[in-house]
Amino acid sequence: MFKIPEFAWEFHGHRCPFMPIGYRMGKIAMEKLGVEKVKDHGAFALSEMGVGHPQTCMMDGIQAVTGCTYGKLMMERLNYGKVAMILYAPGKGAIRVSALPEFQDELGKKEFFAYRKKGIEPSQIPPSVVEEAVKVVLETPEEKMLKVENLEGFTFSRPKSSFNKAKCSSCGEYVFERYLKVLDGKQTCIPCAEKVMGSGI
Amino acid sequence: MFKIPEFAWEFHGHRCPFMPIGYRMGKIAMEKLGVEKVKDHGAFALSEMGVGHPQTCMMDGIQAVTGCTYGKLMMERLNYGKVAMILYAPGKGAIRVSALPEFQDELGKKEFFAYRKKGIEPSQIPPSVVEEAVKVVLETPEEKMLKVENLEGFTFSRPKSSFNKAKCSSCGEYVFERYLKVLDGKQTCIPCAEKVMGSGI
Repeated sequence: MFKIPEFAWEFHGHRCPFMPIGYRMGKIAMEKLGVEKVKDHGAFALSEMGVGHPQTCMMDGIQAVTGCTYGKLMMERLNYGKVAMILYAPGKGAIRVSALPEFQDELGKKEFFAYRKKGIEPSQIPPSVVEEAVKVVLETPEEKMLKVENLEGFTFSRPKSSFNKAKCSSCGEYVFERYLKVLDGKQTCIPCAEKVMGSGI
Repeated sequence: MFKIPEFAWEFHGHRCPFMPIGYRMGKIAMEKLGVEKVKDHGAFALSEMGVGHPQTCMMDGIQAVTGCTYGKLMMERLNYGKVAMILYAPGKGAIRVSALPEFQDELGKKEFFAYRKKGIEPSQIPPSVVEEAVKVVLETPEEKMLKVENLEGFTFSRPKSSFNKAKCSSCGEYVFERYLKVLDGKQTCIPCAEKVMGSGI
């Protein structure tokens, strides 16, 4: 049975089947690329999930196992609405891992999902019902659960980082230069500029 | 001295001063709002940080302490380029916490930042240099470090969640309905549609 370390559950906040799916996806992608958990900024984990749909907990499992955290700017959503992820390590390649439709159909039959569709939060679902769904994720063999693809030539990057910052002439708070606006010839932060000019600056 | 639990360091992947800043920010915001760590989806943590600048590690501390994780869709960036966050618990209110400019100036004098400006990753900086900066964050009294504001009438929401999904007529993968596109009359996923129509669909 696949093991999820305790820190990942503690970080996530509740038990559910999707955090472990993400953990398994990330682990497999790391093995295929030959990379360890990223301490700093060595790889990007790109989730194909979006908003306004369930099962996004997957992304916390991916953060936990790969070390590609949102805080380090190493995770981002691609907003395709798919239960899938891409692990991209510059210079080493990119691996896509997705949950097979057949596996999603099987998992979806579990009672856990009936509770979720009624709007009941994971922490409020009876533990036996939760564990039944978690067990499926931890015990299903990889080939019956996930599709793994090598993405030739895949690339993703962030803008070049700059330490430059200046104080907003209005509120006095520091703003990283990239986000400074100019209002009546003075440098301001976005919220102060929007108070005068309206939103969407 | 303020304590950061081990799971938060393990999640984050390296020791640095910004993860603990976020942890302290989140903790104070929770106390002011009277909320516990969110197990499921009870609050949003909105970071005022953006991309293309340093110190974003703050967001991992916020995720860890508040339980408002990116995976649960309870964290998002506002992209203002500021060392600040908003904790919003619907029905309970919103608290903004920002790092005081004077504190940022003081912290910025530490040797840790000289290494970072040379492009040296946190895990590669001598531990004594890292711990000197971490200690400042853990030992500075709240009033010399953070500004705390109550945001009257603040609101933030996500689109209504739907479990509806369908298979892409081209690749056969499941897509949550919100992200389905129509190409030649057939429902497809975004990547399959973009292969035919180009990006930006």
